[in-house]
Amino acid sequence: MTQTKKIPYKIYLEESEMPTQYYNVRADMKKKPAPLLNPATLKPMTAEELSQVFCTELVKQELDDTTPYFDIPKEIQDFYKMYRPSPLVRAYCLEERLGTPAKIYYKFEGNNTSGSHKLNSAITQAYYAKKQGLKGVTTETGAGQWGTALSMACAYLELDCKVYMVKVSYEQKPFRREVMRTYGAYVTPSPSETTAIGRKILAEHPGTSGSLGCAISEAVEAATSQEGYRYVLGSVLSQVLLHQTVIGLETQKAMDKYGIKPDVIIGCAGGGSNLGGLISPFMGQKLRGEADYQFIAVEPASCPSLTRGVYAYDFCDTGRVCPLAKMYTLGSGFIPSAHHAGGLRYHGMSSILSELYDQGLLEARSVEQTQVFAAAEYFARVEGILPAPESSHAIKVAIDEALKCKESGEEKTILFGLTGTGYFDLKAYENYNNGTMTDYIPSDEELAKSFATLPQVE
Amino acid sequence: MTQTKKIPYKIYLEESEMPTQYYNVRADMKKKPAPLLNPATLKPMTAEELSQVFCTELVKQELDDTTPYFDIPKEIQDFYKMYRPSPLVRAYCLEERLGTPAKIYYKFEGNNTSGSHKLNSAITQAYYAKKQGLKGVTTETGAGQWGTALSMACAYLELDCKVYMVKVSYEQKPFRREVMRTYGAYVTPSPSETTAIGRKILAEHPGTSGSLGCAISEAVEAATSQEGYRYVLGSVLSQVLLHQTVIGLETQKAMDKYGIKPDVIIGCAGGGSNLGGLISPFMGQKLRGEADYQFIAVEPASCPSLTRGVYAYDFCDTGRVCPLAKMYTLGSGFIPSAHHAGGLRYHGMSSILSELYDQGLLEARSVEQTQVFAAAEYFARVEGILPAPESSHAIKVAIDEALKCKESGEEKTILFGLTGTGYFDLKAYENYNNGTMTDYIPSDEELAKSFATLPQVE
Repeated sequence: MTQTKKIPYKIYLEESEMPTQYYNVRADMKKKPAPLLNPATLKPMTAEELSQVFCTELVKQELDDTTPYFDIPKEIQDFYKMYRPSPLVRAYCLEERLGTPAKIYYKFEGNNTSGSHKLNSAITQAYYAKKQGLKGVTTETGAGQWGTALSMACAYLELDCKVYMVKVSYEQKPFRREVMRTYGAYVTPSPSETTAIGRKILAEHPGTSGSLGCAISEAVEAATSQEGYRYVLGSVLSQVLLHQTVIGLETQKAMDKYGIKPDVIIGCAGGGSNLGGLISPFMGQKLRGEADYQFIAVEPASCPSLTRGVYAYDFCDTGRVCPLAKMYTLGSGFIPSAHHAGGLRYHGMSSILSELYDQGLLEARSVEQTQVFAAAEYFARVEGILPAPESSHAIKVAIDEALKCKESGEEKTILFGLTGTGYFDLKAYENYNNGTMTDYIPSDEELAKSFATLPQVE
Repeated sequence: MTQTKKIPYKIYLEESEMPTQYYNVRADMKKKPAPLLNPATLKPMTAEELSQVFCTELVKQELDDTTPYFDIPKEIQDFYKMYRPSPLVRAYCLEERLGTPAKIYYKFEGNNTSGSHKLNSAITQAYYAKKQGLKGVTTETGAGQWGTALSMACAYLELDCKVYMVKVSYEQKPFRREVMRTYGAYVTPSPSETTAIGRKILAEHPGTSGSLGCAISEAVEAATSQEGYRYVLGSVLSQVLLHQTVIGLETQKAMDKYGIKPDVIIGCAGGGSNLGGLISPFMGQKLRGEADYQFIAVEPASCPSLTRGVYAYDFCDTGRVCPLAKMYTLGSGFIPSAHHAGGLRYHGMSSILSELYDQGLLEARSVEQTQVFAAAEYFARVEGILPAPESSHAIKVAIDEALKCKESGEEKTILFGLTGTGYFDLKAYENYNNGTMTDYIPSDEELAKSFATLPQVE
């Protein structure tokens, strides 16, 4: 395709061009992701079983692997208009500073108060909870992006929001906590005395600083033990990936408008929802044989589920109360080293991305965090935006690819997802600035030990 | 004018529609703002005198009250394209929640890493320093928005940036400090051992936590005592207000595009640069008799320079090393109560705005901070964006005006400036959330005492 118009620094779609449907990439996959299993029976979860924990409409989206498009309700489209479309940015300054013939684009999801893409799914999940007549939702949060996003969505819809925040984050990230409180959320440090599982953990491990697995268990208990509540989750699930396709759909439309075709598409991967959301519409074209792209998932070397994990059924939570998913996993007992600063700490990967990776349609790379922060700082100084540590994994590989083009002279078009800002991650930047940040790569023995926590299925 | 197009939630100009010149409102003022005076001779400052402290090109802009437009250099236009145009937002959700017939718009300047409009002038001042062949610039920062903005601009232009940060902020706002360091700035807690004035103050007041006045004095000394450095300032000066007119020019063009005419234009006012930047092009129309608008400056009741100050020559800094300006002032000895949380702590007001206020062209209101935070929280929950405490002064009065319309049934169009985000102000939000925030209004006796610090001029 020839580029006919001058490409602006930032491409914004008109409101009339914004997506009105989410795209379900599973519909175009010949071999589908494996179904969720009931942890008690090891049989596929039914809609009825899932509806005890999740909202009914979201359960439908979770289980449907054949319908290609789901309408975005008008109310959600209106909410999106408050912070979307997000800009597709041409990184002219970065290209010039690198001296690369490559053309670099990034889709920037950080221009909202949650500081990340998480809001895209938070509003949808909250909307269906409201529509179902529920009083509120419960969730867990670690770093806090998801909890903030959900608080914002619930405040907008005047819905109760109960967030179980890992105790160590609750204490070390008071500002994240206060954003959520400003949006009216009830934030409880986990483990807490408010749930049976919390009391049990506190009795067994007095003084524990908590874990994401424990916070999930508390949030699920809080949802299922109270009338009018359901549990919601910020990543990993297929429904979340579905909602995040708004990122990729906007990107694709913006690129089409200017006749731009990406050669390489790069995103960071924790649970996989942002990467899945960005690549889905492009992957759809690839699956249908309409176009070809190189896709790269970037993960931390300290939590390498795709590059060093196994493809197996595993628990989604360390508390083992959630369904089993078939995914690339390090074992639900895996806990990333305390050396690791950012998010992307999840032991597994979205079952959709796992299946695409297994089919060889998606590549994966792992990077060490000091390199990631070096790329982040370089990017911040040249492009202005202070990126989240998570997003900076994608920046690192985008820069690597651009430098390869400099060597080879290729004029590739590189697209990456800039999922969020680093305003609440300055403790990690401080460590980097002071030269006290270190890297950590788990040993084979360590991984073998956590693989041993995998359940025996099949 | 009739509204012919559907108004989107957010109006973005095309890059080709972005301003290429700043507008100098002084050119249209019949009675000009009074000139800066040399504190030693009490005679108007000459360009030569000012050039010892400020960059030559900026001195020209500072002194010129007749040229209506100044070209924005191509390099600055390119930098602006990385984070501008900023959106003009139609607050549909706020209108609906308030149940007002008023139409509310806000120009949102927070979508950049400095978190505010400060970057608009930081890049221009840094650009002229670079063009003059300087090695770097020095400045002071209190809350940190300005220091962050200047660090970003200097990183982009590869210019040294030395920031004297009030010691209490340096210690209580470590994240602000780290953003600046990430952008390569040298951040020094003030008072420091690095300057003669700093050493003097430390000897006289051991253990002092510093003040903005002291930090200014150190920054000016650091600029004038080193080859290749100049001092730059983030507000108050006419040059800064000039650069900030990019806000108003974009707003005006966006409104014209959709046939919108504001009735009331509201902004918060500390030193006055953001308000001046927003209203300048509209004030120009008023001064030329082409249109009429109501302009409202909103200031904290705890630092009420317009509503309770006097119009007189005063020192711009508590250290009394800078020129004298004629302005509405509380006296350079005035220090806002520690109860006051946000910015807008400056004792005086831009001489341009002061003169416009004195001529009755601009109104002023003062508001108490618990009301301001109540408005901020209300706004955040409805419109999504977590506003800076400074910006929330404007939100408070915009809501007041919208509620008046609800009572009277008037369909006024209200425009306000949303200057920044509150991501680094969560300590203040925490106080508000906990119900421990209080208000403070200085007594007449207290003001009389600080008026006594005014110099005898004329």
